Amino acid sequence: MRPVSIHTGAWRYPGAWADANFNFARLKYLIQKLEAGKFDAFFMADHLALLNMPIEALRRSHTVTSFDPLTLLPALAAVTERIGLIATASTTYNDAYHVARKFASLDHISNGRAGWNLVTTANPDAALNFGQDAHMAHGERYKRAREFYDVVTGLWDSFADDAFIRDQESGIFWDPARMHVLDHKGPELSVRGPLNVARPVQGWPVIVQAGASDAGRQIAAETAEMVFAAGGTLADAQAFYADVKGRAARYGRDPESIKILPGALVVVGDTVAEARAARDHLDSLVHEDSAIGSLSIALGVDARAFDPDGPLPEIPETEASKSGRERAINLARREGLTVRQLAQRLGGYAGLALVGTPETIADEMEQWLDGRGCDGFNIMFPHVPAGLDDFVDKVVPELQRRGLFRQDYEGTTLRDHLGLKRPENRFFP
Amino acid sequence: MRPVSIHTGAWRYPGAWADANFNFARLKYLIQKLEAGKFDAFFMADHLALLNMPIEALRRSHTVTSFDPLTLLPALAAVTERIGLIATASTTYNDAYHVARKFASLDHISNGRAGWNLVTTANPDAALNFGQDAHMAHGERYKRAREFYDVVTGLWDSFADDAFIRDQESGIFWDPARMHVLDHKGPELSVRGPLNVARPVQGWPVIVQAGASDAGRQIAAETAEMVFAAGGTLADAQAFYADVKGRAARYGRDPESIKILPGALVVVGDTVAEARAARDHLDSLVHEDSAIGSLSIALGVDARAFDPDGPLPEIPETEASKSGRERAINLARREGLTVRQLAQRLGGYAGLALVGTPETIADEMEQWLDGRGCDGFNIMFPHVPAGLDDFVDKVVPELQRRGLFRQDYEGTTLRDHLGLKRPENRFFP
Repeated sequence: MRPVSIHTGAWRYPGAWADANFNFARLKYLIQKLEAGKFDAFFMADHLALLNMPIEALRRSHTVTSFDPLTLLPALAAVTERIGLIATASTTYNDAYHVARKFASLDHISNGRAGWNLVTTANPDAALNFGQDAHMAHGERYKRAREFYDVVTGLWDSFADDAFIRDQESGIFWDPARMHVLDHKGPELSVRGPLNVARPVQGWPVIVQAGASDAGRQIAAETAEMVFAAGGTLADAQAFYADVKGRAARYGRDPESIKILPGALVVVGDTVAEARAARDHLDSLVHEDSAIGSLSIALGVDARAFDPDGPLPEIPETEASKSGRERAINLARREGLTVRQLAQRLGGYAGLALVGTPETIADEMEQWLDGRGCDGFNIMFPHVPAGLDDFVDKVVPELQRRGLFRQDYEGTTLRDHLGLKRPENRFFP
Repeated sequence: MRPVSIHTGAWRYPGAWADANFNFARLKYLIQKLEAGKFDAFFMADHLALLNMPIEALRRSHTVTSFDPLTLLPALAAVTERIGLIATASTTYNDAYHVARKFASLDHISNGRAGWNLVTTANPDAALNFGQDAHMAHGERYKRAREFYDVVTGLWDSFADDAFIRDQESGIFWDPARMHVLDHKGPELSVRGPLNVARPVQGWPVIVQAGASDAGRQIAAETAEMVFAAGGTLADAQAFYADVKGRAARYGRDPESIKILPGALVVVGDTVAEARAARDHLDSLVHEDSAIGSLSIALGVDARAFDPDGPLPEIPETEASKSGRERAINLARREGLTVRQLAQRLGGYAGLALVGTPETIADEMEQWLDGRGCDGFNIMFPHVPAGLDDFVDKVVPELQRRGLFRQDYEGTTLRDHLGLKRPENRFFP
């Protein structure tokens, strides 16, 4: 979510809520429906600047105005009971103390439902909104992110779970012996602590990552508990799954402690033909300007200069997302696409799409799960509300019937939903 | 609020909720009760480190674990309809882009109920949590705050109110001609913009300040729309009121566009004697360690070294809050208090207190309002929930009976409640 649909044409679909990204009442409807469908979590991506695409494409984008995730999710926490709440927060353009404090607060307010999608921010324009002349280099960003993670989790461990006594008789509110001052001094960050928030309900909010580059996979293997993976082919997904779980094992972690969930756009129909027609209609709503804009973002260069009917030229590496660039280049090479064809695919949504009936969609999901391609899916909706309603009303019951998905929540926290352990406090084991 | 009572002994009062600062269900009760009492707003102070007091006092404080205001208030927005939501955010330890974005998001999510209490942060320990060796000097902090205000309000004006077209037919979501790129490059901040959030419902969230030093008064006169004033005597308040409104007029502002609201601790009884006894009981719950701790905070030095039965020694100026130090020194001088006596006053609550029956409290309020001591009050409760319930159930009806307070909300936004105009967009008038 953010945009409420990844598909650029979503807001133009007949019956779609064009303003859903930026209308609290609509977002409240959507999350409550997802909760009725027993989803693990509501996942909110983020951007710290306008998307870096040409203005002709940008004026067609429904992402320009969106809520700050850490402001929206507390409000959604207050109108839900069980569903997890995953917010994106950048390690490049934030202070660790604020990030630790806001997620700890959200975890308490939601009674243990918070998750942190740790990103390093791919859009180089963000730098200019945060007092910097240029975006930090890819390797530097990941170095800072790794240290940032250590500081944030260390701050979450500032207090033992039993630190707050609140003895009205003696007047002792808390026990200083059950507090740890982090006193972190590292190459990138210097943070004394302690945090002025009690240890989160979940110990730590769930750590989520989406990096696909080598550095992204390594930090995920060392720290992530859930990975928002790129879709692609099942073979690609199996290789990614084995790679990340293997890296985790080599780092000394239980591979079961990382859940890998590829993004999947799901379009449901009463017949496969109806679903395919719906997707084609959706793709037809993507304007060529948006298509070229998406290609420009993926490549990190302005694609308007290219011959639309020619093959993709050589693209130099930039400090923008490496994985997006590689995916686009590989897709064009694999399918022999022209620049225009590639742009149209990327402009709609080029990743994993499950398009069919509830039965064929459940079949595909089962194949991915059984084939060790993933541990679950990050479901993306073609448009809202109908695309989301269809999934909850039609696909969820089919998955439940097959025993692939819960009938009801079994626990109360996001960790419970995902089958993840509560981390021990490193200072008060 | 934060703590839910300013009074250090509040959490120990018989029947008080000891965990109210850090329990969402309790805070939800409190704000809904305030809304039933037609309050303008729920005001949340903040700290970016543990209070800088000796540990023997700190372990008696109910403020050690508290929610981040910008995480709590969105959750409270979702469970209320009309009451304003004022969050404190520091200009010294934040990025302007984040502050602009979070308050704009809160204003939209709450349908125009957000306010920003702009502070420069008095506690020098905050610096150590944000990668700095020492707290920024007082004058520097205010210089940065003034520029920060210009940037945040400029970012709020990034889009004209009619920028978002969302024309599903043509596929144009918004009009780039109705967007302004701030491109701010100042001595303290460099922020390109635009904000990726539409202009707030209120144009700008209401600007609130609480500084009492000369620099604090001047920035309030130039920018604030509501001032959380120190209480003190009516004569002090009248002088402050005239000074700030006079500065505003000299700056070219309508003095009516700044509302001055002193903090007032209100203790209600069926008789004046009963109310006074309740306050005495509350004060008796303040431990001497806390009392000395509060004195240390006010002065910016460790007061344990002083002779408790002697007069207050000379106190050097530090980079901590100047106004707190001056208030303490003046109180001791005015009433000839020993160190212990001063500590006990400060340890409970030394500012303006209205202690009596609903009638005597309303009389005092009327005297302050008629005497141009203030435009209203920031009510502080001796303990919760009973101290707050008493105010809403007993004092509010008395104020309504006298025509001093609204019977119901007349508008929907915080600006409506306060009688403040919606600011024009400086780029799209």
